[in-house]
Amino acid sequence: MSISSSATLNDVDLDAVVGLVKAIQDEPEVAATTWSAEVRWNGGFQSEARIREFTPVPSDEPVALGGADTAPNPVEQLLGALGNCLAVGYAANASVAGIAIRDLRIELTGDLDLRAFLGLREGHAGFDGIHVAVHLDADASPDQLQQLHDTVVGTSPVGHTLARAVPVNIDLA
Amino acid sequence: MSISSSATLNDVDLDAVVGLVKAIQDEPEVAATTWSAEVRWNGGFQSEARIREFTPVPSDEPVALGGADTAPNPVEQLLGALGNCLAVGYAANASVAGIAIRDLRIELTGDLDLRAFLGLREGHAGFDGIHVAVHLDADASPDQLQQLHDTVVGTSPVGHTLARAVPVNIDLA
Repeated sequence: MSISSSATLNDVDLDAVVGLVKAIQDEPEVAATTWSAEVRWNGGFQSEARIREFTPVPSDEPVALGGADTAPNPVEQLLGALGNCLAVGYAANASVAGIAIRDLRIELTGDLDLRAFLGLREGHAGFDGIHVAVHLDADASPDQLQQLHDTVVGTSPVGHTLARAVPVNIDLA
Repeated sequence: MSISSSATLNDVDLDAVVGLVKAIQDEPEVAATTWSAEVRWNGGFQSEARIREFTPVPSDEPVALGGADTAPNPVEQLLGALGNCLAVGYAANASVAGIAIRDLRIELTGDLDLRAFLGLREGHAGFDGIHVAVHLDADASPDQLQQLHDTVVGTSPVGHTLARAVPVNIDLA
């Protein structure tokens, strides 16, 4: 990893980020983005998510839930998406603050009562709570790390989507 | 796909699901599950989510956002997780209802204003709304399909996690 210039601190292309910020300041509508995925069912509890031109992401359920256990299940994928989003946030904001990250590891757990999913009770079928432990080894003071952390948590797209009620419209086409 | 017995309709192992339901009815604490993921940062905006013993799921950002565009980004992963979760829901509930699914394809989009993530404004950094179009080809009447759909939407773990405010605690370890 080169830290010879701020533009490559943490291997982050800050020039691209700064360019995007400037583009949005010139034309605010540039900030309005739409993201997509297409899921195809493959039989049983197996499916795959196709995103742009990337290799499809496989999904399955554990045997105890009736699956063939060939891939992470959807709620595990959700936790992974949150961790990956936080990683981008730390890398971006540390680079802006001039902080070199040596190592970053994020542990995520979520508690889920299966009864609503299985039709054994009404109500909330999702995670009751999500807990994240961030192991951040970086060249900064505890105060700087806490400030970085607060910024990341306060601006995380996936974090906010989970922590807030977001309109989800699901229609038979 | 064998539809010779209800236990294998849609290739779903209904016996396993029924067994889990019975186990929960005998011991309700069996329903309390905890799911985990661990994310490791790989430099820049690249990271990977490790889930049980499966191949790590890679993550990156598009070039315009400062990434190297080697993998789906976290908000795309989130949409994929929702679609995969809905697929499980249709397969499970269709099998219980005796409905054979011929084909299932789910299109997901989400609208996101980048300004909060980029620190250009305060407030919500997540999806403003998520839209899902379900293409379900199955051996059932429109009324049966609508009932199936309503059950799936009403019991989706990922769907409920997104549509409702869930406590997300993120701590520096």
